[in-house]
Amino acid sequence: MSIQTKKLVIGLFGFGVVGEGLYRVLQQTPGLNAEVKRVCIKHADKPRNAPPELFTTDPETLFDDPEINLIIELIDDADAAFHLVTRALKKGIAVVSANKKLLAEHLDLLIELQQKYQAPLLYEAAACASIPVIRNLEEYYDNDLLQRICGIVNGSTNYILSKIFDEDIDFETALRQAQAEGFAESDPSTDVEGLDARNKLCILLTHAFGLRARPQDIPCLGIQQLKQADADYAREKGFAIKLVAQAQKQSDGQVATLVLPQFVAPENLLYNVKQEYNGVVIETNFADKQFFYGKGAGSFPTASAVLSDLSALRYRYRYEYKKLRHSVPTTLSEDYYLKVYVSFEQLYQVPREAFQEIYQWSSAADFCQVSGLLHISQLLEHDWWKNDSVSLILLPDGIIDARTVQTKKYQRKPELVF
Amino acid sequence: MSIQTKKLVIGLFGFGVVGEGLYRVLQQTPGLNAEVKRVCIKHADKPRNAPPELFTTDPETLFDDPEINLIIELIDDADAAFHLVTRALKKGIAVVSANKKLLAEHLDLLIELQQKYQAPLLYEAAACASIPVIRNLEEYYDNDLLQRICGIVNGSTNYILSKIFDEDIDFETALRQAQAEGFAESDPSTDVEGLDARNKLCILLTHAFGLRARPQDIPCLGIQQLKQADADYAREKGFAIKLVAQAQKQSDGQVATLVLPQFVAPENLLYNVKQEYNGVVIETNFADKQFFYGKGAGSFPTASAVLSDLSALRYRYRYEYKKLRHSVPTTLSEDYYLKVYVSFEQLYQVPREAFQEIYQWSSAADFCQVSGLLHISQLLEHDWWKNDSVSLILLPDGIIDARTVQTKKYQRKPELVF
Repeated sequence: MSIQTKKLVIGLFGFGVVGEGLYRVLQQTPGLNAEVKRVCIKHADKPRNAPPELFTTDPETLFDDPEINLIIELIDDADAAFHLVTRALKKGIAVVSANKKLLAEHLDLLIELQQKYQAPLLYEAAACASIPVIRNLEEYYDNDLLQRICGIVNGSTNYILSKIFDEDIDFETALRQAQAEGFAESDPSTDVEGLDARNKLCILLTHAFGLRARPQDIPCLGIQQLKQADADYAREKGFAIKLVAQAQKQSDGQVATLVLPQFVAPENLLYNVKQEYNGVVIETNFADKQFFYGKGAGSFPTASAVLSDLSALRYRYRYEYKKLRHSVPTTLSEDYYLKVYVSFEQLYQVPREAFQEIYQWSSAADFCQVSGLLHISQLLEHDWWKNDSVSLILLPDGIIDARTVQTKKYQRKPELVF
Repeated sequence: MSIQTKKLVIGLFGFGVVGEGLYRVLQQTPGLNAEVKRVCIKHADKPRNAPPELFTTDPETLFDDPEINLIIELIDDADAAFHLVTRALKKGIAVVSANKKLLAEHLDLLIELQQKYQAPLLYEAAACASIPVIRNLEEYYDNDLLQRICGIVNGSTNYILSKIFDEDIDFETALRQAQAEGFAESDPSTDVEGLDARNKLCILLTHAFGLRARPQDIPCLGIQQLKQADADYAREKGFAIKLVAQAQKQSDGQVATLVLPQFVAPENLLYNVKQEYNGVVIETNFADKQFFYGKGAGSFPTASAVLSDLSALRYRYRYEYKKLRHSVPTTLSEDYYLKVYVSFEQLYQVPREAFQEIYQWSSAADFCQVSGLLHISQLLEHDWWKNDSVSLILLPDGIIDARTVQTKKYQRKPELVF
């Protein structure tokens, strides 16, 4: 009997907010004909709001149970998740995972295992939770016409930035509120430094452009270096600052890919993506812009995406990774320009040679602001922008194709004081 | 050789804005490996911007060509389209159509023919053009959790309403501008009277709730009865007026389904859907609201949706109509309430008995405004709301489950003058 017609008997790893959310949803929707049979947890002594006989700390109990035909992995630890997911696939068991770090780092191998053992792995919840962006990129934008994806894919940082901008409170307070509301982990560094957004972008790149990239090869800056003065500058210009993950096809067919704070104008669809919401703008050659919006964090939205994977499994759905089979592989572009704003404290901290062109600058004894055009090699080969006292923020429409940059000489303005 | 591996050789019916748009897009994207071989047109003598040998006025030329493995139907005439589409399916040829009227009226038969002759029919372009809403409803929201869909699905009326509200111009001028920009047909009645939106809603209901409804069974009012005073009232309250197609599951499992002008508050995601754009809000039990947004009219956005159907056909995609196979069929609810605003010119034109409850009223010699609660049977069984001098506009969150309406007695206010 195939998985499509029989009941889904689930072995669940992890019973945190999402795991428990999923357990509750399945209890409330008998129509799905799916049952959580065992839950493997790490800490046996934590009080759980479910029958004790459900729980085990021994993963083997789940793998050895012949009734279990689906493993759902909802644990934080990407290394442990790697072992569980590969183990399940090698046993030919279908897997649903929401672990973006695992997926971003090991997708090549996981694709191979899916093919070798004919076991599907679905992970819609791994990017933008409830928004069906992976399946849409895989299925709907299945042609050469996709030009750009551009999204707010991390709910925690978006929540923090919304608090800072809409309620005029400082970073620390906003972070504490995000943690209190459950939108930021107790160790928020993965979110705040943009690493979570970068992992999600890695997954999206696979399904959008057939581009497999290592997370560490994608230039990435989170919101940890932003200053009050940057927020003031944004307000003055009528912009919001958002942490934007984006990928934009260049005229040579390669893809410019970044996670950076960006000034976002009110006419940008991402401007109104606030609090813990996520939003993704997809641009194609002929359909112009399309926009997907929904909750990107929280137990039920994530559980809901896991549920949609359950439904999809019933109907034999699996990712086909069609775009990976392009004859000419798509790669990360290393030749494009960025229009950026940079603020910093000490003169000479940011090398003026970094800029191909300078649009505007202002400087005082202890604070400088520059906006200008720089080549992506500045971010790929240098570290000045990673300094705590430097903020680097992408300007609107800030990714510029190398072929459209005039070969002007570097315009050093005579009044330039830094 | 299956359609998936060989070149798509297309027989195209219709060479209007969308047909020509598609032809151009296919010429510019050889990677799709699809070629328009013949185009069947109605008027041989119209000048066409393509080689003359492409065209024929004889449909049989297309059906008899053994090379043609895909029929794309992009003609206005729903009756002619019906013959072409059924003819093709019966010959086992795959079909892509964008004809919402044809689909809304004949989907039962077309589903039957697809199954009988094992020929797929795709029609993503038939609702919301470039927004992949049909496939998302079919594939992603495939569970019992879908509660509501609510959308602006007609670009022409939205364009007209945007002009009226944002540029403060009158209905006639706005309509003329919409026609000049190509967003309204020369005979705009289908759009303006809401019939196009209702046809699209019929298609969406099939894929959202597994509900097959006849268009004429869905209460529908377009924008043709709206008055300047209604626009003024909306502005005063901070609302926009939008033509909203919606379906909302009731507590008894049946679905309240309507196309009506509605007051939309700024916090509603549909508020910012302007000009020729479309937007659809999908509400599920656990994922809260999700929002899809994109261009809903125009040659390239529509052609782009047709293209995505082409891609899908290559990968053996076909609608499975899973939700139609539910054990208990979903039907149109005939027992729910509406919170509405009604304006009218003559006393007694709107029967006060129509209202279960009245919230507010004002009246002068030649103009009355009432807001209150009425039972859907008022729209199903009476005609007073279809009079040209009456405007009926749904209030925000205006669909009320019958079970939540208190069994209060009809509250006739003593001051009531009409």
